[in-house]
Amino acid sequence: MESKYEFLKKSFAQWLHENEAGAVIAVSPENVLHTSGAYIISQRMIRDRLAMAIYPSEGEPTFLVGDVVHRTAKAASWIEDTRAYTEHHETPMQALAQILREKGLATGRIAMETRYLPAESYLELVGELPDATFFDAEDILNDTRMIKSHDEIELMRRNAIAAEKAIEYGYLFSRPGDTELQVVQKMGKALHELGGEWSPFATLAAGAEHTMAAHHIAGDKPLLPGDILRVDMVGYWRGYYSDFARMAVVGEPSDAQRKAYHQVIDVQRYVMEAAKPGALACDIYQACVDYSQEIGMPFDLNLIGHSLGIGLHEYPVLGPTYEKSLKANMTLCIEIVSKVPGLGLFHIEDLILVKEDGYARLTDHMDTSEMLVIR
Amino acid sequence: MESKYEFLKKSFAQWLHENEAGAVIAVSPENVLHTSGAYIISQRMIRDRLAMAIYPSEGEPTFLVGDVVHRTAKAASWIEDTRAYTEHHETPMQALAQILREKGLATGRIAMETRYLPAESYLELVGELPDATFFDAEDILNDTRMIKSHDEIELMRRNAIAAEKAIEYGYLFSRPGDTELQVVQKMGKALHELGGEWSPFATLAAGAEHTMAAHHIAGDKPLLPGDILRVDMVGYWRGYYSDFARMAVVGEPSDAQRKAYHQVIDVQRYVMEAAKPGALACDIYQACVDYSQEIGMPFDLNLIGHSLGIGLHEYPVLGPTYEKSLKANMTLCIEIVSKVPGLGLFHIEDLILVKEDGYARLTDHMDTSEMLVIR
Repeated sequence: MESKYEFLKKSFAQWLHENEAGAVIAVSPENVLHTSGAYIISQRMIRDRLAMAIYPSEGEPTFLVGDVVHRTAKAASWIEDTRAYTEHHETPMQALAQILREKGLATGRIAMETRYLPAESYLELVGELPDATFFDAEDILNDTRMIKSHDEIELMRRNAIAAEKAIEYGYLFSRPGDTELQVVQKMGKALHELGGEWSPFATLAAGAEHTMAAHHIAGDKPLLPGDILRVDMVGYWRGYYSDFARMAVVGEPSDAQRKAYHQVIDVQRYVMEAAKPGALACDIYQACVDYSQEIGMPFDLNLIGHSLGIGLHEYPVLGPTYEKSLKANMTLCIEIVSKVPGLGLFHIEDLILVKEDGYARLTDHMDTSEMLVIR
Repeated sequence: MESKYEFLKKSFAQWLHENEAGAVIAVSPENVLHTSGAYIISQRMIRDRLAMAIYPSEGEPTFLVGDVVHRTAKAASWIEDTRAYTEHHETPMQALAQILREKGLATGRIAMETRYLPAESYLELVGELPDATFFDAEDILNDTRMIKSHDEIELMRRNAIAAEKAIEYGYLFSRPGDTELQVVQKMGKALHELGGEWSPFATLAAGAEHTMAAHHIAGDKPLLPGDILRVDMVGYWRGYYSDFARMAVVGEPSDAQRKAYHQVIDVQRYVMEAAKPGALACDIYQACVDYSQEIGMPFDLNLIGHSLGIGLHEYPVLGPTYEKSLKANMTLCIEIVSKVPGLGLFHIEDLILVKEDGYARLTDHMDTSEMLVIR
């Protein structure tokens, strides 16, 4: 079977040929991992230490990193020609311009990640190579990220289950009177035990009011009888995200709470069934709008799903204007939210894999048919 | 005492007056937290959901965020005029241009974070406001971040101690034969129990070879007798980082290992003593180079320290070309590394607070005079 590296080389070469361009350059942490295979862990925190993977239309790619991480990059990447610029002595753009000159691309058309590259670096690069022209590389980078490889799917499945076990543990070992923060700490601790590198936001909210905020930061609010809890869990491991949402309730839910929860579950299952190869993303969105109305669920979502992988939000997305069709081996977070005045925000999210013959839920550890009850 | 908000308003107004400019605009997650007081936790992961704090030279600031996080931003920020753009309906730059027009700044000079703002957004903004001119805002944003407030120092002290306890716990509860990854998981789990939101990299390396890589990712390598271990710990809590390094050794260290470790400790203490108000950063660097040579420690560092706070690397830095002087209430990570052929990389890092009368080590939980011994 073709390796991911071979797939990328071939895809980029063909796209560059069609677009009469000389190179694709990845700059964002996500696309550097995608195109180099190297997970440079400091790249997100020390942003001015730019790393770049340069795939020319002909010949071998080059991987350019800061000298501090050169050894790490060399060991991890499938790109053989790995080079370093010396920080504080030359800028990443000077080093990049030199490589492009060497590859005969100083006057070429270059596809660059201009939605990531900072304006100042861009202006510097244009100054270094005044005869080159730059255009955005996002389309081809996104397109090559949409279909997941076997290894990527297995890594995401593993991440999803570890994170879900951690959430379940946190809920199960919580009691009325615990604070939001204590619940999150139980979850985070469990995630690290199960193998998670980050838990960027286990944003947990308790009570009708707190659940209404997007990404509420867990605080000192204690869990009180009748409170609903929602956690929008984002986990991270070896460069890949997990993302899903789970709800709980302190004591037996009221009829109104149960009804609101069942509605989001009902709508989510409807959408998961619709996520088949060949279906258009925008059609699934519209069907969801119609079905929500039919069952009387309050609905105001711009998106009901997004892909997941190296990025937290990847393409395809399930929104009203996204007209591409789903394909096998895409991953999708199916996320349904309903805001019920007075009751709070009800939220469910699961990661699925689109298969030839339907879908598989990768976050399949917990039974989500009812809210978990905290006693 | 003046609030941080009052300090910022005053500092920006004065700087804008001196630079004949109409507004300072913060865009990066770090400077949005710095200038708005709001910690928008999804900002780092969903980068195209730009948030911006706009401080005009006269009148009140405006905080602009995506609609998904509007409620969160409103609740958290000290800026009263908080507004949202509707994602997928208008772009952040269209909304920003509208605000600048409303403030009478469409033809003004605007200080913008062009080292963060993506090139594509920058070009869009220039298109929206062709008569405005933009220049980089980093200087004033960095300058106002250098001196930490009382609250910031207390938060950083708390983070430092929680992270250090977690590292110590991980080392203490490890045994020969455990893998690098098992040690990291113990540390991560403890950090979450003690209150940490992220542990972006507890990059732990065991053995001479693995320690030589910057930010080695912990793997399956087991701890063997004679292995040195180093962990470069980065913790995160409520928008503020912790960062320090600690070493351990499996069994009794050899004389050569002990000597190499004592050298980095010796040099680090020398630098900490030199970090006094009034001292020039570049002079401290040069004194460190000289002292390392005097005691025969291998030295090849571009930087021996950096500040810490909302960012992992903040100003001031202790490097050869940074000519500013230290002031009280700056925080500094003093980081000494020595690569010894055959033995591995020896590394110590601590967070200190510069005080009127010397320094205080904020990472003062562990005794670092010897490497911790794992048995």
